[in-house]
Amino acid sequence: MLLDDTPLFDPALLQDLDWSGNTISFSPPISPSSPGDGLVLRPLCIADFKRGFYGVLSQLAKTGDVTAEQFSKKFEHMKKTGDYYVAVVEDTNVGQIIATATLIVEHKFIHTCAKRGRVEDVVVHDSCRGKQLGKLLVSALTLLSKKLNCYKVTLECSDKNVAFYQKFGYNSSNETYMQFRFFD
Amino acid sequence: MLLDDTPLFDPALLQDLDWSGNTISFSPPISPSSPGDGLVLRPLCIADFKRGFYGVLSQLAKTGDVTAEQFSKKFEHMKKTGDYYVAVVEDTNVGQIIATATLIVEHKFIHTCAKRGRVEDVVVHDSCRGKQLGKLLVSALTLLSKKLNCYKVTLECSDKNVAFYQKFGYNSSNETYMQFRFFD
Repeated sequence: MLLDDTPLFDPALLQDLDWSGNTISFSPPISPSSPGDGLVLRPLCIADFKRGFYGVLSQLAKTGDVTAEQFSKKFEHMKKTGDYYVAVVEDTNVGQIIATATLIVEHKFIHTCAKRGRVEDVVVHDSCRGKQLGKLLVSALTLLSKKLNCYKVTLECSDKNVAFYQKFGYNSSNETYMQFRFFD
Repeated sequence: MLLDDTPLFDPALLQDLDWSGNTISFSPPISPSSPGDGLVLRPLCIADFKRGFYGVLSQLAKTGDVTAEQFSKKFEHMKKTGDYYVAVVEDTNVGQIIATATLIVEHKFIHTCAKRGRVEDVVVHDSCRGKQLGKLLVSALTLLSKKLNCYKVTLECSDKNVAFYQKFGYNSSNETYMQFRFFD
């Protein structure tokens, strides 16, 4: 199986973001095109399976034992829909993924057949904390959702992260998030 | 433009649901295959644009002024992804849609490349309340999410509807639902 570098979505969407719309401060200043020394912010590609993508995800949730075939099949489905924006930060010095976050575009009939964004699965490898990469990913994907003409972007987070997301413009909703879990 | 009856998804998915898994009581008893006198529960089709689908949606949220072309384009995109399950109840006596709800399947890399469900846009036309159609739609789509092997299904609702959704097996999460609205 070829694990190639075809991006999940157009890399220019991240590189060409209007960063002047970013609402939070970075010190030192970083941006999607300059995320830090040796670091690159870019779309996920299938080859990231062998660059530790799952090692990062495993710090967020149970990942299970995924084969390259399963990963590739999921990737291809996401790419086919055109609605999945899985961004990664690679440390090119070591060829490893060190952070990731996902924007999913959901289609609606309401609001004049609008789109909405959902930010999911934000995680930075614990060996790479303190590089502002979580902030970079959330700010970039929030700006991307606006650029893609979503009428709103939403997420669910633990109470301790509410203040973090407020910095980007998110407000706690008065709606309740409910779930029904069938299995882990 | 042909507004045809091609379903958004396989109608058998609703008709063949194992209704013994339903957790709530209906009085009188109704089910996906027998939703009530003259009523049919089925997937959305493009022809529903002229059967008052938007009249129902407008009781839920702003719908805007949508053309048949916009509707058809959105429908075709949803159908292409294979991940949108917009169910409707039609009153065949008058050829009008009277209720709708949507299950969206979201793809993950975590949980062994799992799927999760999201229940969205549940609404019954106010002239047709008291027919248990909201309950029917939520129960059917919750069972469908399980049948489609989602590891969980989630939704956001107002506080006054929490008790309603608990009947189907949903629990209030300790996570906070946050949103950033760009326009109405």
